[in-house]
Amino acid sequence: MDIEQANQEAVERMMSARPILKNIAVAGDVIPGMKENLILHAGPPIDWERMSGPLRGAVIGALLFEGLAKDEKQAIDMVVSGEIDFAPCHQHDTVGPMAGVTSASMAVYVVDNVTHERRAYSNLNEGYGKVLRYGAYAGEVLDKLHWMNDVMAPVLADALAQSEGIDLRALLSEALHMGDEGHNRNKAGSLLYLKQLSPLIAGIVEDNKVKEEVLQFLGDNALSVLNPVMAACKAMADAAHDVEGSTVVTVMARNGTDFGIRVSGLGDEWFTAPAEVPDGLYFPGFDSEDANPDIGDSTITETAGIGGFAMAAAPAIVTFVSGTPEDALNATLEMYEITVTEHKNFTIPVLDFRGTPTGIDIRKVVELGVTPRVNTGIAHKEPGIGQIGAGLVRPPMKIFEEAIYAFAEKYEIG
Amino acid sequence: MDIEQANQEAVERMMSARPILKNIAVAGDVIPGMKENLILHAGPPIDWERMSGPLRGAVIGALLFEGLAKDEKQAIDMVVSGEIDFAPCHQHDTVGPMAGVTSASMAVYVVDNVTHERRAYSNLNEGYGKVLRYGAYAGEVLDKLHWMNDVMAPVLADALAQSEGIDLRALLSEALHMGDEGHNRNKAGSLLYLKQLSPLIAGIVEDNKVKEEVLQFLGDNALSVLNPVMAACKAMADAAHDVEGSTVVTVMARNGTDFGIRVSGLGDEWFTAPAEVPDGLYFPGFDSEDANPDIGDSTITETAGIGGFAMAAAPAIVTFVSGTPEDALNATLEMYEITVTEHKNFTIPVLDFRGTPTGIDIRKVVELGVTPRVNTGIAHKEPGIGQIGAGLVRPPMKIFEEAIYAFAEKYEIG
Repeated sequence: MDIEQANQEAVERMMSARPILKNIAVAGDVIPGMKENLILHAGPPIDWERMSGPLRGAVIGALLFEGLAKDEKQAIDMVVSGEIDFAPCHQHDTVGPMAGVTSASMAVYVVDNVTHERRAYSNLNEGYGKVLRYGAYAGEVLDKLHWMNDVMAPVLADALAQSEGIDLRALLSEALHMGDEGHNRNKAGSLLYLKQLSPLIAGIVEDNKVKEEVLQFLGDNALSVLNPVMAACKAMADAAHDVEGSTVVTVMARNGTDFGIRVSGLGDEWFTAPAEVPDGLYFPGFDSEDANPDIGDSTITETAGIGGFAMAAAPAIVTFVSGTPEDALNATLEMYEITVTEHKNFTIPVLDFRGTPTGIDIRKVVELGVTPRVNTGIAHKEPGIGQIGAGLVRPPMKIFEEAIYAFAEKYEIG
Repeated sequence: MDIEQANQEAVERMMSARPILKNIAVAGDVIPGMKENLILHAGPPIDWERMSGPLRGAVIGALLFEGLAKDEKQAIDMVVSGEIDFAPCHQHDTVGPMAGVTSASMAVYVVDNVTHERRAYSNLNEGYGKVLRYGAYAGEVLDKLHWMNDVMAPVLADALAQSEGIDLRALLSEALHMGDEGHNRNKAGSLLYLKQLSPLIAGIVEDNKVKEEVLQFLGDNALSVLNPVMAACKAMADAAHDVEGSTVVTVMARNGTDFGIRVSGLGDEWFTAPAEVPDGLYFPGFDSEDANPDIGDSTITETAGIGGFAMAAAPAIVTFVSGTPEDALNATLEMYEITVTEHKNFTIPVLDFRGTPTGIDIRKVVELGVTPRVNTGIAHKEPGIGQIGAGLVRPPMKIFEEAIYAFAEKYEIG
């Protein structure tokens, strides 16, 4: 078995995957295996007892949103009595930022990898303030979700239906030349997304007030495109999965308690360890005492070669996640050491248009003692509060070591 | 007389000017001294005999657009017989890219410097291909101009009237963190502009088709915001003009034949010399043999501390204007040597958020033998063809030397 060759094939598949945003649909209608009493969440598998505050809050919010529970107490009772099933988004071709909670009636982006004829899904981004993805579930949170689901999603779906779809790989390529890294900074990408949608929305929707509200909401949210971008990264990373003999990481995800990875040549096994608290900048009134451990599927961006790996493209991000522009440059340079290739489509102008470091090799991570760098938002550890900062974090080394052991065992090495 | 103090006052005025885009109106109604038989043009004063091909083409196009002439021959006859007056845009508080031709019935942006209660104007950007500003005047060029004037301008005016105006200094600050330099690269700025306009347009205009066309046109044109940005830079540079004893440049402009500057402490005198042909990248099928000498008022961006002076913020621009990202960095570093200050509002992330080099001091230019760096589009030398490339250019040293002599004479130095 030639690991190098397997890894080369994995990253070629990852880079050749062309993710097109074609549709918005109801989760229960499109996500494989989705059902009414199933709640998908970010990160590796976890049960209610071990769930962190923000994930619990989002679960409660989803049960209220679905109308399955009428209040917090009933929601918790339903969960505790075993009426609700849980599964990682990743096990249903889906990704979601932070808590990542996705339930059957929520609208989701449908992203087609047209190269390999596969799909990935992601929920809609709620913007800032009190939001479900950070575990908030007050009335205003649910009201906004209902507006997004009932008003905005049909408008976006109609707009997309009038187009040939949005090429998210091309959008990301451009955004990386406009100061985005695609994970914590999606300012340019969200505007490129708005640019494509705005004439479509203006042309087809009848109600001027709805148009204005939807365009205002999309324009005000510099994370509008994060969720379709995550689905695009999921589609790209998935294309690299299940390559026999490959040591390339195809999933990195956190549920607020554990950090988990999957590896291309190791099937659907999760390697997990406790997630760490990010190191970053806190909003006024909060500090690391308030922070929940690392949470969310958004590390799919780093898995696909952007996000923290493309920090050199986004020097302005340091005002948000801490550090200096030189740290940002060094973050990218360091990631070249643990990756298989340089991306063909994602390039960094300031590095003479060098491709982003792509395809994390668990062998290099363990040999060099260098774990992947991740940019992330920071959630309050209590449900119902929301984002309290943003920063940098790394997965625990232990999960890469365990993956190496499993790889050696499966492939009878050493 | 303390030159240092005068220059400090000039740049403080330049940086404190806050340009707000508040309105779009008809040139003849708002531009001081505008009249039916007057054509404003880019750069220093010039008569028909010495005008280059693209400027002549734009003049012919404007006379056709105004309905003053029915064909090219009649237009030229009118000019030759002295029926048409010409004046630099700059002498009417106006700026225009490339030929810069502005006539009485054209719609223009009205930008208020709310700090010093002064105004600046600029025409609307036509996008790519055959356009008046590059000297094209075929039927399709005039048709587009009429659509812009009759359909788009009223929509934009209505949208702006619903807003508090667009803070162009804030927009530029953000765009410089998104890979723009504000002159040849206005991709992010144009999207930020679209973001502010799209909900307003969607909310107030009744005709869906008009909305769709206007949003499509604005979104497809990565130079949409160039013209309001130029008016903003004009407003900022003007605020620094007429400071007694200041050696700061407040106008740099080219008419396709001559490059001209004005200096804060030297009143309205122009210092001019023949413009050079830019050094750059040509579109397929063209080379420097086809190029017209440098043309346009867009050097007002460099005059105000962005454009070529902010190249370090826009490494991706080198694919358009030639050079490497390191050249772009060095361009900015070099400009610190000939400027008075670092901008308070315009910062460059990759230089640890250092302010852009601002306020060209003619003394430093001459002492160090370093002329300002300018990014620019390249026009074909024949009228009617259009843009054939983009590149870099510098003004002739002679005009700075002559300005120094004039300064010494006026202020009885040496």
